[in-house]
Amino acid sequence: MSLLVVGSIALDSVETPFGSTADALGGSAVFFSCAACLLQPVQMVGVVGQDYPFDALQRLAERGVDLTGVERRPGESFRWKGKYSYDLQNRETLDTRLGVFAEFVPRIPEAFREARYVFLGNIDPELQLGVLDQVRQASFVACDTMNYWINGKRDVLLELLRHIDLLMVNDAEARELSGDWNVYRAARWILERGPRMVVIKQGVYGAVLVNDGRVFYVPAFPLEEVFDPTGAGDAFAGGFMGHLARTDDQSPANLRRAMVYGAAMGSFAVERFSTQRFDEIGAAEVTARVREFGDLVQFDIGPGHER
Amino acid sequence: MSLLVVGSIALDSVETPFGSTADALGGSAVFFSCAACLLQPVQMVGVVGQDYPFDALQRLAERGVDLTGVERRPGESFRWKGKYSYDLQNRETLDTRLGVFAEFVPRIPEAFREARYVFLGNIDPELQLGVLDQVRQASFVACDTMNYWINGKRDVLLELLRHIDLLMVNDAEARELSGDWNVYRAARWILERGPRMVVIKQGVYGAVLVNDGRVFYVPAFPLEEVFDPTGAGDAFAGGFMGHLARTDDQSPANLRRAMVYGAAMGSFAVERFSTQRFDEIGAAEVTARVREFGDLVQFDIGPGHER
Repeated sequence: MSLLVVGSIALDSVETPFGSTADALGGSAVFFSCAACLLQPVQMVGVVGQDYPFDALQRLAERGVDLTGVERRPGESFRWKGKYSYDLQNRETLDTRLGVFAEFVPRIPEAFREARYVFLGNIDPELQLGVLDQVRQASFVACDTMNYWINGKRDVLLELLRHIDLLMVNDAEARELSGDWNVYRAARWILERGPRMVVIKQGVYGAVLVNDGRVFYVPAFPLEEVFDPTGAGDAFAGGFMGHLARTDDQSPANLRRAMVYGAAMGSFAVERFSTQRFDEIGAAEVTARVREFGDLVQFDIGPGHER
Repeated sequence: MSLLVVGSIALDSVETPFGSTADALGGSAVFFSCAACLLQPVQMVGVVGQDYPFDALQRLAERGVDLTGVERRPGESFRWKGKYSYDLQNRETLDTRLGVFAEFVPRIPEAFREARYVFLGNIDPELQLGVLDQVRQASFVACDTMNYWINGKRDVLLELLRHIDLLMVNDAEARELSGDWNVYRAARWILERGPRMVVIKQGVYGAVLVNDGRVFYVPAFPLEEVFDPTGAGDAFAGGFMGHLARTDDQSPANLRRAMVYGAAMGSFAVERFSTQRFDEIGAAEVTARVREFGDLVQFDIGPGHER
């Protein structure tokens, strides 16, 4: 089934204890697409300036990302510069230059307007609502946001929640949105405001899916080497939505599989700088990692193992 | 199989955002025993002052905890006073009075010296080594420690590692011990120094078992109400060791079950102040919660679910 992503297309300059990158591929739509296109073709909507590296986008196109919806506008591309702490658990934004992203108003090409699976990357919730006005056939809409919008455009965000199927946020965002530090109460608060389900990402620990009174937890893949956490959340979303779109199956069991594909893609994202790891892997690596998740959590407790 | 625990027996005064307790049952040996005795009889070794509430210990005895090894000495019992932050993620120690615990030297009663499963709660590693000199028949020794000993008695602790089967610590302790912020590298560092396996507890997120090149992750049970995190780690140890001792099965599959019993007991510990929750539950509640862990992590990805 068709899969649409709307989000940022950026150039990231990242410093970690292990090295740094300058003007590397980044942005929510880019990380999402790099992951999702390993599972399903992607329709991407975003904006870049005239300085954006054409080669890099072309490589995405070769992997099944339809760039029809990427506007190229006069001006500079969105740039983000950040620095991570020694343990990669905290990051500081050193510089943000919105460039052409400041005036971004998503226009969904005619060919994308019948998208069935839609991911709204972290942009102004007014723009996210505007996307939903243009895609009327969606059977599943997932949405990310951030503290900036939770504080600055709370009412619009709450309106948006009434129109989406899944809110996918990290634990800090869930807490800030709900005003509750307990992530499971925060999840319930969110579910009472519209979405059928919520995914709360917990960084190096894992992610939790809450829906229909059930909780599913997928741990983060155990990695001894993590180079750059940037984009892990968007890659998670790409794996999740990519799996759902290719199977077109929203059953509880398949949502759980989607979580595992999400966690697998998140783990690939952090193994190299920027989107580099996605240049190296294909279906075989994805399948292998997804299987490893089974061994990571599998146990059996039946009648024979009880007192 | 016989199960021995050596550790602190304390009176805790705890403040949380939801209330407070004064001189409530606490200490590593107590939390361990409250959890473990739901699965298997426990032999407890520790020390209390003349002021320790006899009734409370008697309730433990009625549940299968052999108190032969609990010394009653002139002086005051070990008291700890702490205050948790609003989100229960951080705690401040307001007061520590060691009392008779300051001079504690574990003496294992003759009847306990053939214990097959041994848990060394967090005490001076010299004393932990001293316990191992007294229990020569142990087939499985697990050990906890803390930053105070990691910094202050590092050499003794490293010697101890050569004589135990399992080190069970939290992530901060694993990092401090190994000097590595990555918990999986930290686990490998620890395994290279003696233990056959390591469990790294990650608080509200869960716990990870690393052994024989395999990783098993059990999430923390999803709780909307957490009252008092004190003792969760020791209750986890009690569930883990209680299950191993009653089954006397150290196979990889059974170690995974032990992790789930540990996580279940940890979740009970935090649902009330002090050890109160353990007064309310029996085998049925334990079995029910352990089964719920299956639903929390279970997914299936077979050939039919791949591209």
